[in-house]
Amino acid sequence: MDEAAFLTRLRALPLHPGAYGLRDDTGTLAGLVVTSDTMVQGVHFLPDDPPADVAWKLVATNLSDLAAKGALVEAITLNYPLSNAAWDDAFLRGLAAVTHAYDAPLLGGDTVTLPLGAPRILTVTAFGRDAAAPPRSGAQAGDALWVTGTIGDGGAGLAVARAGHGDAYLLGRYRRPTPRLAEGRALASHVHAMMDVSDGLLIDAARMAAASGLSLTLALDAVPLSTPARATGLTALAAATAGDDYELLFAAPAGWTPPVAATRVGRFAPGSGLSLTQGGASVPLPTSLGYQHGA
Amino acid sequence: MDEAAFLTRLRALPLHPGAYGLRDDTGTLAGLVVTSDTMVQGVHFLPDDPPADVAWKLVATNLSDLAAKGALVEAITLNYPLSNAAWDDAFLRGLAAVTHAYDAPLLGGDTVTLPLGAPRILTVTAFGRDAAAPPRSGAQAGDALWVTGTIGDGGAGLAVARAGHGDAYLLGRYRRPTPRLAEGRALASHVHAMMDVSDGLLIDAARMAAASGLSLTLALDAVPLSTPARATGLTALAAATAGDDYELLFAAPAGWTPPVAATRVGRFAPGSGLSLTQGGASVPLPTSLGYQHGA
Repeated sequence: MDEAAFLTRLRALPLHPGAYGLRDDTGTLAGLVVTSDTMVQGVHFLPDDPPADVAWKLVATNLSDLAAKGALVEAITLNYPLSNAAWDDAFLRGLAAVTHAYDAPLLGGDTVTLPLGAPRILTVTAFGRDAAAPPRSGAQAGDALWVTGTIGDGGAGLAVARAGHGDAYLLGRYRRPTPRLAEGRALASHVHAMMDVSDGLLIDAARMAAASGLSLTLALDAVPLSTPARATGLTALAAATAGDDYELLFAAPAGWTPPVAATRVGRFAPGSGLSLTQGGASVPLPTSLGYQHGA
Repeated sequence: MDEAAFLTRLRALPLHPGAYGLRDDTGTLAGLVVTSDTMVQGVHFLPDDPPADVAWKLVATNLSDLAAKGALVEAITLNYPLSNAAWDDAFLRGLAAVTHAYDAPLLGGDTVTLPLGAPRILTVTAFGRDAAAPPRSGAQAGDALWVTGTIGDGGAGLAVARAGHGDAYLLGRYRRPTPRLAEGRALASHVHAMMDVSDGLLIDAARMAAASGLSLTLALDAVPLSTPARATGLTALAAATAGDDYELLFAAPAGWTPPVAATRVGRFAPGSGLSLTQGGASVPLPTSLGYQHGA
């Protein structure tokens, strides 16, 4: 069963009003934004990724979902599979680093043991407060689509990790992403729609357009690439479908200038579907727009 | 690293005030009780346990923690590894059954894919409201220790599941435990301390005594066994160390009679440590008091 089919089935269960029909990355409970991410060894991280970086990324990806709602970090919970002492120790050092860096206090969670040799599966749930909480479905016809930072560094960093050598900046962007909490805070009450880019710019932008009931035209030549990413020969199309970026994607009225560093990459219009341009000319969509679980 | 060592390290991290130093089964956040349980295939459930029962047990064990706080169920989140369509379908049917049975609306969560053949690791986080929330640390010298229901059925049911044949009642108690939500609601504002029995009556009772800074004497011949459990030849000592019961364990003033069906099994006194009696005579503690993660 793929993720979409599973979600369809979940929607037939009793849902909490704060679940928004399971159509957003986060829920709302007692005035808090709630989000949860699970990472699987061999799927979301490599078996030989440093455990401290796994801890960082697990927390940072959750905080990125809070950033997209403009929330302040209230607490996190951790569900952790105990394994060998060296791995656990290194993980705890990374957990200390990321929880101190983003002021993310631990509320609780669970620890379990694993069958010998089983891949680790780790879950963090994050809670945010005081959020303006723009939905992903709020884009309006005529809005511009913007993205913070640069796109494709995560994917290029994954290639570095797999190769075992390459640019340290890109590797760091893959292993220790920066949740855009300050940017989200500055943007949230001004934008029509916002979400983070986790599965790929194209697929996430297409999701925002679909959730908003609009069409979207995205200019590949506007996609912001970092200098190290360009130096690897990464194309804009590869960058825009690679995922693991954890930048903020937001829709705002044409003519409005964001208060944070961001790049305009597209425009919403009535209708449906995603179109790509390069040099002003239409280009075909790639087979895959990004990462889809269970696909 | 065992669970105790891991928790000690976690306590050095920034903690939320509602974490209570990570010394309770639940936390408190925005007035809600928060609890989270992870179940691992091959550890917390058998690879050939029916997926619908796995769903039931995963939700029910979390609701059991809410029951121990006297909470009403507000919401749950689910972190789920997609695998094959038949397993996912059966799991969803069990999830529908348990969420309807206990009025537990879904708030959100995450779905992931697994490497081929990896054991499933599933997490549910549950949120409860309006809880009197007795701590596990509140027992007072002279208090009686009580337990709801019967003890040892879960362990005896696990033996049935492993054998592939045996008593259906015991198997049901193992696979579909009943969270004592109504009992917890009736007890919570009257008792000094309460927790659920998940790892074994002896280990959980010893934890309540230690958290309360008291000694505890527990009468093995008072431990309530069901008729089907007795029929298997289960001893009180085996029942009291088997775990998987999900009954409520609570401390209350001597002379007080609980408003729900429960059995008095022990007495708290100044000092520390757990002592056992049988027929009024002291008996030695077993090597293992119950299930300890990572031990």
